[in-house]
Amino acid sequence: MTTMNKQWRLKERPIGAPSAETWDYTESELPTITDGQLLIKIEYISMDPAMRGWLNDAKSYIAPVQIGEVMRAGTVGEVIESKHEKFAVGDYVVGHNGVQSYAVSDGTGLHKVDPNLAPLSYYLGVLGMPGMTGYFGLLKTGKPKAGETVVVSGAAGAVGSLVGQIAKLKGCRVVGIAGGAEKCKFLVDELGFDAAVDYKNEDVKKGLKQACPNGVDVFFDNVGGDILNDVLTQINLRARIVICGAISQYNNTTAVKGPSNYLSLLVNRARMEGIVVFDNIKEYPIAMKEIAGWIQSGDMKVKDHIVEGIETFPDTLMMLFKGENFGKLVLKVEG
Amino acid sequence: MTTMNKQWRLKERPIGAPSAETWDYTESELPTITDGQLLIKIEYISMDPAMRGWLNDAKSYIAPVQIGEVMRAGTVGEVIESKHEKFAVGDYVVGHNGVQSYAVSDGTGLHKVDPNLAPLSYYLGVLGMPGMTGYFGLLKTGKPKAGETVVVSGAAGAVGSLVGQIAKLKGCRVVGIAGGAEKCKFLVDELGFDAAVDYKNEDVKKGLKQACPNGVDVFFDNVGGDILNDVLTQINLRARIVICGAISQYNNTTAVKGPSNYLSLLVNRARMEGIVVFDNIKEYPIAMKEIAGWIQSGDMKVKDHIVEGIETFPDTLMMLFKGENFGKLVLKVEG
Repeated sequence: MTTMNKQWRLKERPIGAPSAETWDYTESELPTITDGQLLIKIEYISMDPAMRGWLNDAKSYIAPVQIGEVMRAGTVGEVIESKHEKFAVGDYVVGHNGVQSYAVSDGTGLHKVDPNLAPLSYYLGVLGMPGMTGYFGLLKTGKPKAGETVVVSGAAGAVGSLVGQIAKLKGCRVVGIAGGAEKCKFLVDELGFDAAVDYKNEDVKKGLKQACPNGVDVFFDNVGGDILNDVLTQINLRARIVICGAISQYNNTTAVKGPSNYLSLLVNRARMEGIVVFDNIKEYPIAMKEIAGWIQSGDMKVKDHIVEGIETFPDTLMMLFKGENFGKLVLKVEG
Repeated sequence: MTTMNKQWRLKERPIGAPSAETWDYTESELPTITDGQLLIKIEYISMDPAMRGWLNDAKSYIAPVQIGEVMRAGTVGEVIESKHEKFAVGDYVVGHNGVQSYAVSDGTGLHKVDPNLAPLSYYLGVLGMPGMTGYFGLLKTGKPKAGETVVVSGAAGAVGSLVGQIAKLKGCRVVGIAGGAEKCKFLVDELGFDAAVDYKNEDVKKGLKQACPNGVDVFFDNVGGDILNDVLTQINLRARIVICGAISQYNNTTAVKGPSNYLSLLVNRARMEGIVVFDNIKEYPIAMKEIAGWIQSGDMKVKDHIVEGIETFPDTLMMLFKGENFGKLVLKVEG
């Protein structure tokens, strides 16, 4: 039996939520490589909210995925064939190699990782793009000081759970906003957050008032919409709002909901600032080393949510937008 | 005939635009002063968009005006009686002495100005609160660099016309957004702006695209609403948006219109930050000196819009919200 390359390609740009119509599933024979190339057997594929944005035909921080292209995604896998001087068979590599079971690469954007230092999936989460996003977004843009109150939305997700834990390590009061009692309990009991607000079952503004008696100094927002608007009513003088994402708005068919309470920025001389992880690429090694240290010392806990089988990609991706993932969502290629 | 003190007091908090119902006009005999007090004959009263916010019973950067109180306003006037060691009869003083023809003060918040150095009304405009707002908001928060493109809304107003002229002095390309051909012509022909967009007769997004071929690096916003939203589509990487005000939204009876394009902050790693002029109070003298120098050298032009007669206060104030003022709006107490 020939081994086949299983691939998910963009068939049609979605209006609103991606659906079955959005994707094409194809199988083809394994590609052959030429000089300067290598072949990767992908083991894990990262499922990230940012992927929704890559489907839009709009100017952004990165080019949109083209119709017919294999869907862009962060991946980790093993080099199984190499005609590239820097990579050898048996190396494990991380890169944006797409939603497919095998990828040919010329080495661009690849970096090697050590499967013995951490579980492979960590390189897509806490030691990967979400980890870097949370680390640099919080520390460089949020600039939390010990004693301040840090609120994070999407708190049980890949970025949020890391942001909250780093803020705790920096001596802050940390409050997470997440959906459902189970996630909220996890944030407080397992990750050591000071409090959690369950947006699915609580009035967020009331919940925040209770959880943040001294107001909000830093808000790290992954969600947007009503949650951003509610937090804006609770910010302190010179608060920093880090705009990391707006998952509540990505599948809108109407206009994004703008924060009508934005004049709270004026009253409080506060700042709202957007971040894109790739700006920090040169400093990734510093962050990875520090995060790895926290994991090793037990100061940081990691929760991955692994779904098996590349065939499930369309439904697995949608778990992000339904809030069904609990921790970093990763697709394991082989079921 | 006894001289009377003419006063405008807050009668009822407005919902939406202030109207006749909002104000009480009263006349009373001149107050007598006691030790440590002085009596000011007010000559000019500043009309500022911020006054609308002071009418709302909401937590803000300054306490709301109370029902029955004389309306808060910046004023300039002459000391006509003094039992205060620091002020003498004949001194001219600026302060928040309210919409009235005479005021008793204990000296708090007063400072002396020289009527020979500049027309008295300038101390409410270019050398007063609007001047300080534009100067510090642009330079400390907008941080324009030579060669960058600076856009300012409410560009023919007190703050906007100063912001644009300072940005020109700093070597920037400057584009003003204002209402009507006359104001736009004034910005370009008189103040030296590079271009102007007439929001009353042009599509703002199209106008900006044409006027800002290299995008927008700094946006100084006095207006909010659709204009803020349109500018957000044109910003550059690491743009700075200074939130100074949102005059288009102050009289809303429904929610403020939030900027639905705020995710442009993310894509562009841009920043939106609120300012309140009072934070810079210790540095006012530096700014006043520099602005006075620019006026003297002819590098800065000043346009006051003076309406006569304290009796006209309610209608005069409304000119701001209708965009009917052309330059700094000042009420001259005596008609």
